[in-house]
Amino acid sequence: MRLLSPGSGPRVDLGVVLLEADARLGGRTFTVSGEGENTKKLSFDIGGQWIGKKQTRIYELVKQLDIKTIPQFHQGKKVFQSNTSVSTYSGTIPKINIFKILDFELNLRYYMDSLAAKINSLRGWSSKKSGLDSKSVESILYDKTYSDCGGLLDVFVRAVWGTEPKHLGLLFSLFYIHSAGGVYPLAETEGGAQEAKLEGGTQQISQKCAEKFISKGGNIKLNQLVVKITKEKDGTYLLMCRDPTNSDAPFTLYRSKYVILAIPPTQYKSIQFEPCLPLEKQLLAEKAFMGSYLKMILLFKKPFWREKGYSGEITCALDESSFPEFPITMGFDSSQENAKSWGLVVFLAGTSGLYWTQKSTPERHAAVLKHLRHLFKDCEVDEPIEIIEKNWNVHPFTKGCPVNCIPTGAMKLFECAAAPVGNIHFASTETAKEWHGYMSGAVEAGERTAFEVLHKIDSKFPLPVQHQPTQNHSLVSLQNILILIILAIALLAWWFLN
Amino acid sequence: MRLLSPGSGPRVDLGVVLLEADARLGGRTFTVSGEGENTKKLSFDIGGQWIGKKQTRIYELVKQLDIKTIPQFHQGKKVFQSNTSVSTYSGTIPKINIFKILDFELNLRYYMDSLAAKINSLRGWSSKKSGLDSKSVESILYDKTYSDCGGLLDVFVRAVWGTEPKHLGLLFSLFYIHSAGGVYPLAETEGGAQEAKLEGGTQQISQKCAEKFISKGGNIKLNQLVVKITKEKDGTYLLMCRDPTNSDAPFTLYRSKYVILAIPPTQYKSIQFEPCLPLEKQLLAEKAFMGSYLKMILLFKKPFWREKGYSGEITCALDESSFPEFPITMGFDSSQENAKSWGLVVFLAGTSGLYWTQKSTPERHAAVLKHLRHLFKDCEVDEPIEIIEKNWNVHPFTKGCPVNCIPTGAMKLFECAAAPVGNIHFASTETAKEWHGYMSGAVEAGERTAFEVLHKIDSKFPLPVQHQPTQNHSLVSLQNILILIILAIALLAWWFLN
Repeated sequence: MRLLSPGSGPRVDLGVVLLEADARLGGRTFTVSGEGENTKKLSFDIGGQWIGKKQTRIYELVKQLDIKTIPQFHQGKKVFQSNTSVSTYSGTIPKINIFKILDFELNLRYYMDSLAAKINSLRGWSSKKSGLDSKSVESILYDKTYSDCGGLLDVFVRAVWGTEPKHLGLLFSLFYIHSAGGVYPLAETEGGAQEAKLEGGTQQISQKCAEKFISKGGNIKLNQLVVKITKEKDGTYLLMCRDPTNSDAPFTLYRSKYVILAIPPTQYKSIQFEPCLPLEKQLLAEKAFMGSYLKMILLFKKPFWREKGYSGEITCALDESSFPEFPITMGFDSSQENAKSWGLVVFLAGTSGLYWTQKSTPERHAAVLKHLRHLFKDCEVDEPIEIIEKNWNVHPFTKGCPVNCIPTGAMKLFECAAAPVGNIHFASTETAKEWHGYMSGAVEAGERTAFEVLHKIDSKFPLPVQHQPTQNHSLVSLQNILILIILAIALLAWWFLN
Repeated sequence: MRLLSPGSGPRVDLGVVLLEADARLGGRTFTVSGEGENTKKLSFDIGGQWIGKKQTRIYELVKQLDIKTIPQFHQGKKVFQSNTSVSTYSGTIPKINIFKILDFELNLRYYMDSLAAKINSLRGWSSKKSGLDSKSVESILYDKTYSDCGGLLDVFVRAVWGTEPKHLGLLFSLFYIHSAGGVYPLAETEGGAQEAKLEGGTQQISQKCAEKFISKGGNIKLNQLVVKITKEKDGTYLLMCRDPTNSDAPFTLYRSKYVILAIPPTQYKSIQFEPCLPLEKQLLAEKAFMGSYLKMILLFKKPFWREKGYSGEITCALDESSFPEFPITMGFDSSQENAKSWGLVVFLAGTSGLYWTQKSTPERHAAVLKHLRHLFKDCEVDEPIEIIEKNWNVHPFTKGCPVNCIPTGAMKLFECAAAPVGNIHFASTETAKEWHGYMSGAVEAGERTAFEVLHKIDSKFPLPVQHQPTQNHSLVSLQNILILIILAIALLAWWFLN
């Protein structure tokens, strides 16, 4: 890549350049320090936080980069809130009406898992024939269930995608579940996507990769927001960038033979392409929407939840209208034992995230604290000593989190997400086949596009092999079968005893 | 309303002011002259064109304004293209496989009509309980039909909403059908929405209303794009406008006690509100999307279709992938007999509209002409003497046509479309209850908001009464029953004879 000066100035050949719109590397991973006296030297992840052993790509990379993993604390009672009550449970199944659980497990979760297990490739599935792309995730409540078990579906969708089941396309959710190997791997801590944290936070993955990149001669330019990509007559691309921190700064121009765009499809709209992107890419950018996440880490003097036997895991299966009173969607322990830092991390996801984006910070903090006091009734929930929060909904370069969601009717477009356009290649976790939407998917996308470009430069480099998910799909897992047996026994027992 | 100068200049009290972003009045109605020697004095509607007698509000207004209506020419054979063949028919039902017709009529059209007939108010229907809002219109193909009759649904949805059935929410489509009194009133020429044209075009409705408005002391300011609306401490609104035709012109400021916004919800995003709009309005603006229409009027030396007994009505029930070859969605005769001007008007709707937006004008014109030659095989289709076209998809103040569409899960938001926010009132046909999406709906919305504001100024003005659709819902119409009887007899006959 060449750095061009608009006038008669120098033209510098830069080799491989990474242009980053933000003032820092890391994208949707973001590690900050606390501001309090005791937390200044601690790292807190206000973006992507967890990795799981089943996410082989990111796990291997983390090992290579010599970053230590810390298991997510999950010992003790979990808190579950439904519209009517707050209860506690251990294991996987919350203590609510057995019929609702059975209905959810057999008719929704098993249905989604068994369909998802079959989706090896989207081709065919996204054609009209399957019909799955014409319905939202919410529709399966009407097609498949008998009881009022929608709250469980709601909280699953909000937690994973940051949206509501009625907005999310069913086929997209099945593809997503397939890419992770099942519903439980997405939802669970142990053995799932929330298994382990990284000592020092997740942003260092990008930072350590960047160090290697620079040591090999790579260039990194921060505060370079690409606003226009023009294909020139000679086949090269002219990239026009502006500095988002300085509106007076002149545009910077780069010329390059190959471009890898590692941004979510919703962000394609922020770049002017000449010639314009093909119709399916444009429509994908229009139809996809970013989930909504507001992440809040509350630091307390003491781990009041641990003292009463709670794990700190919170699941709130609530109606969409209850968010003004109950903002939290889910929560986890985020303590750093070595540093004697005791914290809970909570997410305001989907409509709750959007609702609370509009409110002032003090209002939001007060509402979350009030909700925590409601959830941990038998604990003394003191005022937090510090609150660290990140509202991804107003982040200028993603406008949401964690991932692009696809509504009904758009999976044909989504099939083409990873397809290059000329020498423009598309990365970002939204183009991954395995652990789509996660850091592991982002690594897959990065590797794939790198090989695509290398193969174009020199055909001795092989095209990337399409990996098949290595993890066993949880459909036939021991856990799955055990849950079904336990539920069936419970139902039979209930039936005989009544 | 007051016109304010930013500095120390004059402040003019303007009474009631209409601020129009465009250089002309009329919005989605647009009447132009031809450019050819013989067409310079003729009017052509390149926007909203037809009204029907069942659309009582616009019909009354047109009468009041003394505008003459001309019946839409529809005598003769209609052309119907399916994926496999081109056929002709008279009446309502195209000559295709009787099973497909029966399947469509009994399982889709009747299903939609009978559900739509029940929807008096959205309340309740848009709640989770009905489940209709969780599915796209396409989903009923899988839930209700047995044959491959989807093409008929496709062309209906493209023609009415300018989108594909997979993107459109089912409950929204039912509400829309209800607002028009049935599927046939939407789709048909005689007795339907395409019944009559206006002598001199439809834009004169706005122009003649504007004359009356000015004669009563009203002010109209063109080229005033509202970019910001700030609610001041005294409760008035400060409107900041820029001239879209002159980027150097300073902003113009207006202050007003009441604001009526007559723009589609998708356009709310183009205005910065302070304080911001309530969450449901913001989400509605995000979730709604504008249909896609490209309108083309082809003028010929002679009415080749009429000479061979065709009405000029074209319906193409085609797969989404066939648009590169077959761009036309539907077409009508647009001749002006008195002036011996012979024309066909065709629409490229939904994906076809978007696809052809990207192509050059000559390519588009050539493709449409080739398609016409395919449809009228037995005619001599000469080169047109003039082509007048309007691509609404690139129109800066609507970014599409004819109407805002609602995807799954957004009907709760849509319920609130007409609700005022402080003294900001919301008009546009997207807030109408009767003939929603049509000019008649726009009149309803205008009247409703005017009464809302008048009532606030002086409570002796009554609040607008919620009208019930006056037309009989076509569910129990003679036409409907006759069609069902004829189809049943045809099926029985076919069954006995085979």
